[in-house]
Amino acid sequence: MRNLVMVVSYDGSAYSGFQVQPKDTTVQGKLEEAVRVLTGEQVKIHGSGRTDAGVHAREQVIHFHTESQIPVQRWRLAMNARLPSDIVVKSVREAPLDFHSRRSAKRKTYRYTIQRTRYADVFTRHLAFFHPTPLDLEAMRQALVLFEGEHDFSSFCSTRRPDGSHVRTIYETAFDFRPEPDAGDGDAGVIHIYMTGNGFLHNMVRIIIGTLIEVGEGKRPSSDMPAILAAMDRKKAGPTAMAHGLMLWKVEY
Amino acid sequence: MRNLVMVVSYDGSAYSGFQVQPKDTTVQGKLEEAVRVLTGEQVKIHGSGRTDAGVHAREQVIHFHTESQIPVQRWRLAMNARLPSDIVVKSVREAPLDFHSRRSAKRKTYRYTIQRTRYADVFTRHLAFFHPTPLDLEAMRQALVLFEGEHDFSSFCSTRRPDGSHVRTIYETAFDFRPEPDAGDGDAGVIHIYMTGNGFLHNMVRIIIGTLIEVGEGKRPSSDMPAILAAMDRKKAGPTAMAHGLMLWKVEY
Repeated sequence: MRNLVMVVSYDGSAYSGFQVQPKDTTVQGKLEEAVRVLTGEQVKIHGSGRTDAGVHAREQVIHFHTESQIPVQRWRLAMNARLPSDIVVKSVREAPLDFHSRRSAKRKTYRYTIQRTRYADVFTRHLAFFHPTPLDLEAMRQALVLFEGEHDFSSFCSTRRPDGSHVRTIYETAFDFRPEPDAGDGDAGVIHIYMTGNGFLHNMVRIIIGTLIEVGEGKRPSSDMPAILAAMDRKKAGPTAMAHGLMLWKVEY
Repeated sequence: MRNLVMVVSYDGSAYSGFQVQPKDTTVQGKLEEAVRVLTGEQVKIHGSGRTDAGVHAREQVIHFHTESQIPVQRWRLAMNARLPSDIVVKSVREAPLDFHSRRSAKRKTYRYTIQRTRYADVFTRHLAFFHPTPLDLEAMRQALVLFEGEHDFSSFCSTRRPDGSHVRTIYETAFDFRPEPDAGDGDAGVIHIYMTGNGFLHNMVRIIIGTLIEVGEGKRPSSDMPAILAAMDRKKAGPTAMAHGLMLWKVEY
């Protein structure tokens, strides 16, 4: 028995999320199918985390146990030949049997992309949330850093589990604004927001982003963030931002 | 009667090209439909040139005559509200009635994108021709510049018209290579090839690119280009490169 670890990238547009669900097309399902076609084995693939329907991954990490004797250096091409064009295996390594893509993960980084321009870019429309009206970028920056550190993120979680902890640590955030040349208005451009943490609750990044967008629109002051966290009440935060702007950026072990 | 000129961008993936064809979905058809829904008029839209099935446009220029009294500054949003998400109007202006998007054009620039990496980027796979094996970039650069100037491009044209001239002028070319960080091999990265000319024959850019790729693969020396041009024979040139790597970049008047 071997434990194979793969870094995979996918355009989530066509999928009902990462995790296998009856009747739905999922990334996990496509990966398991590729392994089955390649080796004849029905393996169970584990990801570092589930991504929701429409969410992308630059570097998702998966692992699975296999009896296959195919050498590790052959797997990347063999998998890519059997995967649809919106999923790609970037690298493959063998790990000790106790390595687990989710449980062994130390840090995860997500990126959310907002396109703040007069018209949507047709070539990246599947990767960015289009926001044609002005945003107060400085207020958004100020609000973002208030999420750093250890907090109870109950207000930023769509499905609370009564038995589970909602405490997570955000180690760092980054607000990367790339202005559009010749746009005229100073806030026009593409915004990439990065969050790195020890784990994320269901929809946590998207609810934080939905709240930051309300800050950018002037509907809330950035100084409200601590009170929203302290309320531990989903209704106090903003809406869940659309899935297609979100990308699992990297996972560190 | 007014003459409206629009700069439009489209992801050509879903279209049977720019020009209206019976039974096929085309960019021109979608634009004419948007005008019809907006004004009730059945206008005839003219583009600066036809782009083939699957070819994209960053800045295609179109014009049409209309009786509509809608102010020019209202058209962009009104059109974009009625267009599918893969076509966008970037700007609108009014021009003298004798302005013609194709006949008045002075220079056109096309860009072709080749992704020379070990695996395809799932997020830009609709915009780049994926070439996983090595390419001799220096030989491709040398071959590209040999197309500059005035030439008979009969060897680089898929449909010769017995009555028409096949002489065109390429004013300038550019070879923009963006290396992939940490890739290991020196030629790994994304290649953007730009060609600016007074006009382009059918499939001319794609046949030049197909020939350059053969040069990059070591199948032909770059020094063969003058002889291929001189032969005025389509069979002497390389294959027609795939449509999805091609983008109409800009049109100058």
